[in-house]
Amino acid sequence: MDEKHLRKLLQEFKVGRKDAEAVLAELKSLPYRDLGFARLDTHRALRCGFPEVIYAPGKTDEHLRALVKEIRRDHPEKFLVTRLEAKRAARLRKKISGLTYFPEARLLTGKISEPASKNYIMVISAGTADFPVAREAEITAKVMGSRVKTLYDVGVAGIHRLLDSVETIQKATCLVAVAGMEGALPSVVAGIAGRPVIGVPTSVGYGVSFAGLTPLLTMLNSCSSNVAVVNIDNGFGAGFMAHLINTAR
Amino acid sequence: MDEKHLRKLLQEFKVGRKDAEAVLAELKSLPYRDLGFARLDTHRALRCGFPEVIYAPGKTDEHLRALVKEIRRDHPEKFLVTRLEAKRAARLRKKISGLTYFPEARLLTGKISEPASKNYIMVISAGTADFPVAREAEITAKVMGSRVKTLYDVGVAGIHRLLDSVETIQKATCLVAVAGMEGALPSVVAGIAGRPVIGVPTSVGYGVSFAGLTPLLTMLNSCSSNVAVVNIDNGFGAGFMAHLINTAR
Amino acid sequence: MDEKHLRKLLQEFKVGRKDAEAVLAELKSLPYRDLGFARLDTHRALRCGFPEVIYAPGKTDEHLRALVKEIRRDHPEKFLVTRLEAKRAARLRKKISGLTYFPEARLLTGKISEPASKNYIMVISAGTADFPVAREAEITAKVMGSRVKTLYDVGVAGIHRLLDSVETIQKATCLVAVAGMEGALPSVVAGIAGRPVIGVPTSVGYGVSFAGLTPLLTMLNSCSSNVAVVNIDNGFGAGFMAHLINTAR
Amino acid sequence: MDEKHLRKLLQEFKVGRKDAEAVLAELKSLPYRDLGFARLDTHRALRCGFPEVIYAPGKTDEHLRALVKEIRRDHPEKFLVTRLEAKRAARLRKKISGLTYFPEARLLTGKISEPASKNYIMVISAGTADFPVAREAEITAKVMGSRVKTLYDVGVAGIHRLLDSVETIQKATCLVAVAGMEGALPSVVAGIAGRPVIGVPTSVGYGVSFAGLTPLLTMLNSCSSNVAVVNIDNGFGAGFMAHLINTAR
Amino acid sequence: MDEKHLRKLLQEFKVGRKDAEAVLAELKSLPYRDLGFARLDTHRALRCGFPEVIYAPGKTDEHLRALVKEIRRDHPEKFLVTRLEAKRAARLRKKISGLTYFPEARLLTGKISEPASKNYIMVISAGTADFPVAREAEITAKVMGSRVKTLYDVGVAGIHRLLDSVETIQKATCLVAVAGMEGALPSVVAGIAGRPVIGVPTSVGYGVSFAGLTPLLTMLNSCSSNVAVVNIDNGFGAGFMAHLINTAR
Amino acid sequence: MDEKHLRKLLQEFKVGRKDAEAVLAELKSLPYRDLGFARLDTHRALRCGFPEVIYAPGKTDEHLRALVKEIRRDHPEKFLVTRLEAKRAARLRKKISGLTYFPEARLLTGKISEPASKNYIMVISAGTADFPVAREAEITAKVMGSRVKTLYDVGVAGIHRLLDSVETIQKATCLVAVAGMEGALPSVVAGIAGRPVIGVPTSVGYGVSFAGLTPLLTMLNSCSSNVAVVNIDNGFGAGFMAHLINTAR
Amino acid sequence: MDEKHLRKLLQEFKVGRKDAEAVLAELKSLPYRDLGFARLDTHRALRCGFPEVIYAPGKTDEHLRALVKEIRRDHPEKFLVTRLEAKRAARLRKKISGLTYFPEARLLTGKISEPASKNYIMVISAGTADFPVAREAEITAKVMGSRVKTLYDVGVAGIHRLLDSVETIQKATCLVAVAGMEGALPSVVAGIAGRPVIGVPTSVGYGVSFAGLTPLLTMLNSCSSNVAVVNIDNGFGAGFMAHLINTAR
Amino acid sequence: MDEKHLRKLLQEFKVGRKDAEAVLAELKSLPYRDLGFARLDTHRALRCGFPEVIYAPGKTDEHLRALVKEIRRDHPEKFLVTRLEAKRAARLRKKISGLTYFPEARLLTGKISEPASKNYIMVISAGTADFPVAREAEITAKVMGSRVKTLYDVGVAGIHRLLDSVETIQKATCLVAVAGMEGALPSVVAGIAGRPVIGVPTSVGYGVSFAGLTPLLTMLNSCSSNVAVVNIDNGFGAGFMAHLINTAR
Repeated sequence: MDEKHLRKLLQEFKVGRKDAEAVLAELKSLPYRDLGFARLDTHRALRCGFPEVIYAPGKTDEHLRALVKEIRRDHPEKFLVTRLEAKRAARLRKKISGLTYFPEARLLTGKISEPASKNYIMVISAGTADFPVAREAEITAKVMGSRVKTLYDVGVAGIHRLLDSVETIQKATCLVAVAGMEGALPSVVAGIAGRPVIGVPTSVGYGVSFAGLTPLLTMLNSCSSNVAVVNIDNGFGAGFMAHLINTAR
Repeated sequence: MDEKHLRKLLQEFKVGRKDAEAVLAELKSLPYRDLGFARLDTHRALRCGFPEVIYAPGKTDEHLRALVKEIRRDHPEKFLVTRLEAKRAARLRKKISGLTYFPEARLLTGKISEPASKNYIMVISAGTADFPVAREAEITAKVMGSRVKTLYDVGVAGIHRLLDSVETIQKATCLVAVAGMEGALPSVVAGIAGRPVIGVPTSVGYGVSFAGLTPLLTMLNSCSSNVAVVNIDNGFGAGFMAHLINTAR
Repeated sequence: MDEKHLRKLLQEFKVGRKDAEAVLAELKSLPYRDLGFARLDTHRALRCGFPEVIYAPGKTDEHLRALVKEIRRDHPEKFLVTRLEAKRAARLRKKISGLTYFPEARLLTGKISEPASKNYIMVISAGTADFPVAREAEITAKVMGSRVKTLYDVGVAGIHRLLDSVETIQKATCLVAVAGMEGALPSVVAGIAGRPVIGVPTSVGYGVSFAGLTPLLTMLNSCSSNVAVVNIDNGFGAGFMAHLINTAR
Repeated sequence: MDEKHLRKLLQEFKVGRKDAEAVLAELKSLPYRDLGFARLDTHRALRCGFPEVIYAPGKTDEHLRALVKEIRRDHPEKFLVTRLEAKRAARLRKKISGLTYFPEARLLTGKISEPASKNYIMVISAGTADFPVAREAEITAKVMGSRVKTLYDVGVAGIHRLLDSVETIQKATCLVAVAGMEGALPSVVAGIAGRPVIGVPTSVGYGVSFAGLTPLLTMLNSCSSNVAVVNIDNGFGAGFMAHLINTAR
Repeated sequence: MDEKHLRKLLQEFKVGRKDAEAVLAELKSLPYRDLGFARLDTHRALRCGFPEVIYAPGKTDEHLRALVKEIRRDHPEKFLVTRLEAKRAARLRKKISGLTYFPEARLLTGKISEPASKNYIMVISAGTADFPVAREAEITAKVMGSRVKTLYDVGVAGIHRLLDSVETIQKATCLVAVAGMEGALPSVVAGIAGRPVIGVPTSVGYGVSFAGLTPLLTMLNSCSSNVAVVNIDNGFGAGFMAHLINTAR
Repeated sequence: MDEKHLRKLLQEFKVGRKDAEAVLAELKSLPYRDLGFARLDTHRALRCGFPEVIYAPGKTDEHLRALVKEIRRDHPEKFLVTRLEAKRAARLRKKISGLTYFPEARLLTGKISEPASKNYIMVISAGTADFPVAREAEITAKVMGSRVKTLYDVGVAGIHRLLDSVETIQKATCLVAVAGMEGALPSVVAGIAGRPVIGVPTSVGYGVSFAGLTPLLTMLNSCSSNVAVVNIDNGFGAGFMAHLINTAR
Repeated sequence: MDEKHLRKLLQEFKVGRKDAEAVLAELKSLPYRDLGFARLDTHRALRCGFPEVIYAPGKTDEHLRALVKEIRRDHPEKFLVTRLEAKRAARLRKKISGLTYFPEARLLTGKISEPASKNYIMVISAGTADFPVAREAEITAKVMGSRVKTLYDVGVAGIHRLLDSVETIQKATCLVAVAGMEGALPSVVAGIAGRPVIGVPTSVGYGVSFAGLTPLLTMLNSCSSNVAVVNIDNGFGAGFMAHLINTAR
Repeated sequence: MDEKHLRKLLQEFKVGRKDAEAVLAELKSLPYRDLGFARLDTHRALRCGFPEVIYAPGKTDEHLRALVKEIRRDHPEKFLVTRLEAKRAARLRKKISGLTYFPEARLLTGKISEPASKNYIMVISAGTADFPVAREAEITAKVMGSRVKTLYDVGVAGIHRLLDSVETIQKATCLVAVAGMEGALPSVVAGIAGRPVIGVPTSVGYGVSFAGLTPLLTMLNSCSSNVAVVNIDNGFGAGFMAHLINTAR
């Protein structure tokens, strides 16, 4: 609903092509579709370059199916369902064709195209247990349209494994650093890289890792200035942010 | 210390222009300068595009002066001292000429040049009390070389003040949203904008705002996917991140 | 046990219609009924306009049945059992007739009458997952006797969905705003409305939403002055409060 | 900016009394006044029945003076400055006449008129140290236009002091219960009263009262259903809510 | 190992009835019995008037059986196993005769004798869900040898139920007040009673009751001076303390 | 207001010695005195055996003076003002004669008499910095009328200092154990003693002692069953409880 | 990659035995082996004297098998898998021979040799429920090659059980003290011993033991200076540290 | 009070050189000296190899002086006063000669001798602001008798500054790693070193560094197994532990 559209609308009203009621309706009509159980924000693709992402937990199979169909009407391939358990994905794929599912990342999407740009995001993770969250960031960014390189299992207790890839790290447009336990990886990565690092704390650990709170606090206190942080286990958000940073305006 | 330099070094050794001891020394020589009381990371400008930023608290006047001089040797104008109290800034400016000080932002720098690109960062803040932190983000990004637009005092209790600027918000390359108390601003801004938003919680508030913890948690839980967060009152970090995002590779 | 009653009692004693023992007994007799396993506060309907509400968790089926029967003796239709699981509700309805059960809200009641007044409460929720709590508030207020309008799935990440209903919001006597994750909805709603808003944080979210603690803190820090808050997931309490506010003295 | 106004605007445009630019401007013009250092929400009196309340901390004397003058232009008597220290109030009253200051409540206002309605709010506090917060609630509600009765220093350790006033409690339209330390007062008051109770935790106490966190948690867990809670020491918010509840639509 | 015993030992050594090795051994022999998997503190009955109490969780059935037998050798009836699940109790009672089990209190003991003294402990609880913890305190004190009176389901939301028993409360030697949710009961009870009150917070509640943390904090902040507190759900500890207080030296 | 009094009152009414109004007034008259700024609970001495204790913080000198005078009217010697700073005590003692002040304990009282009973409380503290809190417990119990023995500076890092006094510990009627830092003292003391131990955590320590929270948690988790706990630094409460325990009914 | 190796490499390059590419490759080659799903830090045995320890949770059976085989190639007997459930251990031992499993400690290793040195570590635990964690420390230190003595079930509530072993405690090279609940054991042990004590908090307890947080805080606040602490339930880490301390350089 | 001494004592008693009273007295006499205000643990030098360390806060100048003199009677040079402010140190040094004061470390001692052994401790710190705590560890270890090497200002944001000293790190007997903010340094150091690392979190930082809580949690969650942790800012404890580790039995 931009200014240009508004001018046109006013013009149509003036010349009588639309009456007052019609204009009022349009001025009020909001860019979402009411599905009864949900209000789908159809305007988001215009605003954000990607349709509304569906967060699976707490939705019935039926609602999920309806939402996927509704979104695919406008965006047959570029869509995303997050935190979808394997069993539910299987049920959904029986009913709807053309869906791709990534089990570790718990993501459902259409198909992923080869990105045009050579610019790439680098997703780095600390331990093998952080893999699912790192993978969620990786696949999200790919679905959005970014090129992604990965470097997994390079925790700071054996810093040389990270130092081996300094050059690839330094050439990335943007980085995602995923770590549980003490969460020190983003600081070290950001010290090496000269580009933005999105830190993703994971709930991997025990005792005073407090289900990810400790790595979250660690990352927020980073002595490197080029680190910003998302919620615990939020691989999706990190991949989304990284894609936006990777695709310069 | 890149590969090219290493090849050259090896070549000089082979042809006898440098002996083993010299090569060893250089291979080991690390890109920092030991000032006795501190190890200045002189390599950072190469790695990150900006020399090491000086965090003023806990440093003596004398050390501060030495560090500023040392950095200005290589970077006469592009440098930054953060969280510097007005009194200390005044003392420093008596000893060293050519320094600019921004009192609300508590930043000391050289001079700020007009940015070449039309791309801009938008810094938005919720209340008048959030101004110093927003200002710190704004000045930091300007010193780094970015164009910045601002929209201050537009808290969510009067959402229409924010909606008035939708267009400017939607055209920014990147946004910084600064808020204390309930910290809802970044979510709302990110819902409107289609670009990355860096949330900065501030310690403004009382009672269960817990000196900024509550807005921090709010921002990390944002239902908008394009939000990442920095530490409480860390306007500098947000401005730094925003600048990196604004300057596409 | 008001003053009028006391005067009458004293008079009866003086004229000999009641002896000292009888008066003492009555002065001491407290307005509750001891069921052995519980002390039913039968006086509450007089004090609060609604009989004691039964909180189901931790009570045996047998005790629940006894309590429902006991309350229905005085209030055949106006009663409420909260947090009752579907299975237990089914077992109860086999034994006692005339009960209505709302599965999402987990509420059991008698029947809901059409309210006399045109005044209405508005219940607004942020996401689809907040529905059960919002529904609990809605049904509670209806059972109490209030008219209720609802607006569900209008989170702040797509603020236009909320703005579409500004007029209905502004005409409500009182509002209930239900939100998990960052919990920003009540602030925004309260900024639009000129009437009291009861914020209900929900345990919807993950990571640092801390099972509802974060939206709770957000709501308590609201920069809008017309927000008060109830416990996490306490849709019942919010509906109860809203009904009391809706029914002016 | 209601529908009626919009229809009139469109009509004026159609008949040529206003051109497209003027209509666009008006459609966009937002109901706030930009004072440079702040955006005054002038529309709030229409929305909420009371002009924007000024929170004094973090504002310069000069800005405070400007804001007070600006608001008094439209509302010479009905306005409120909160958390204003006595010294600052004195300085302000030297520059602007017709101001009333309440030192314990730290409130500045115009003058308080006798309320028309017999309905009253009851403000109850637990200890002598809770007085300033209770007083802030009391004065706020009076400034808004409500009748207020008070009952101070009636903590639950001597419950008979509270029971003495049962009748007055039960006749109030709405109650504010202020308590620090263990914060049990609102539960007990709400058990007696049949109307909404706004609980206000105070930072009075030591050790594990955690500057008001404990009474806050206590109140949120109240076993009485007619309690909602505001932030620690937020007497203003409680008085504001109570006034809205007291003045039925 | 008191002074008298020591003198005797020294004497026996001097007159040659015991040699140096024997004295050394006895001086070192500590009053516990090493069962291999545990070190039973057999001296405790002398020190504390009751043998070591067995905390069941984390012990195998076999170990439990051995410990019960070992203790019963010296104390056939006065012993206690706490937090014992019903199934385990049943298995144990198949192997060992003469055991009494209290299912709600999860306590296993020998038999409870009629106490000699008329002095009594009063155990008071707030809600029906607090019953198991209150019962644990009640049975513990009875097993120890105290007379106990109870008053259950008298939460502060209906304060008149408590006031009905003022006299019995005021005649108790010591009181145990058990409450979850907001935990206000001990303060009110202590305000009425003139004797020590042991507060027991329970994990009954939801949301910000934090599994009993909130009532714990409430009780520690009690404005009544005659309240001390034990761990969440620690009915056993409260009953134990109450018994010690009830039995004057 | 006991039953006997009630019978007498009714009788007087019947025989016409008192009319209905007088009886009503008396039935309602509550046992406190309204001083305007406070409601003095004059009934407490009957209920608890000691008049209301005055908590000094947050009270003006004038109010404090009035309260002390009011209480001394009925109890010339047995009264207590807590947390009174030395300067305020000095000012008070200039205006009122016959007051004794204990500077470390910050307590003001009348005079302390020699206790009749040989039963004694033992107050034990861990470090020299815990002295003020231990002293507050000691003086409080003495003012109440108990005999007190003390054992200060016997922290668990040198356990032999504690073991030296085993006999005196074991003969006490009741014990108060005061400790900051790790707060292990009450557990060890309770293991030695067979009587009730009141644990008092202090705010002595740094880092993760969290101003007394850590020793508080330690004490609540005591593996000794005969420990109950009061708020951080609450020496007064501990002394009060100990006195009640020491004076058997 | 030490200096000597570097000199040799440079020499080989100079005399032409290796070309620039080979030298570059070697300079960059990092001492780990990429197994696809993990990067095994093969260099660690050189750095730390023990190969990389495998943390079992979150790894598939297949990956675990591969990792064990890979490590055993270089270290047939000296290796360790931690937190391995009994069922998984059984499956693994079916596929690979020569493995020893300790069920309580949940450790898998090769075989444990008799240590050469007479120096010993002492592992002490407070309660029977702390046994698994103490056992994990014990076995870890033995696998590493240390002699270990143990003293289990000697909690501070019966301090004499600990005092019985003073001499053995004082002769240990290093001590591990394991405790849940109030966690006071390390302080007392450290007060007796003159050597380093590693405190291990366990998650044994309930209520405000907060799954081990309370004993952790207790130990960090120890008034004994010779205590350092590891994460909750981290018996492995404590055993590892103790072994390093026991084996003097 | 060892076995040998006990045998001798018994012998003297048998042969009549000592009578029963004398033996009893000696058996009871505990190895501390009661100074009235404190119980000096004179036995500690025997137990721990170093006399009791004096923690200055909360002690009067007079008491401090007495304690220093008392300890120096037995240990003229080997003693330590911690956390002593410069002003107090100056006053003390006016009264007692032969004292050395280290202002940043806030330590007072006698004189530091050259250590005999070549074994050394390495103290490493992250930022310039961590210097005082690192220095406290350094001086403590030196006073105890250890050789110490230092590496200051080598935070993980510029990891190459640390890597420069790999060899010195790897040859240390034991390491102390001091860091505030995100506290990642000990993990990285421990990954490089093969010896025990004592992590010391500092209160350096702002926002969610929570005065050192975040680096503390980071260090406790270290993915390196050779890290144990002491309290926030506890440089003394770390230096003490490091010295004990450095001096093999």
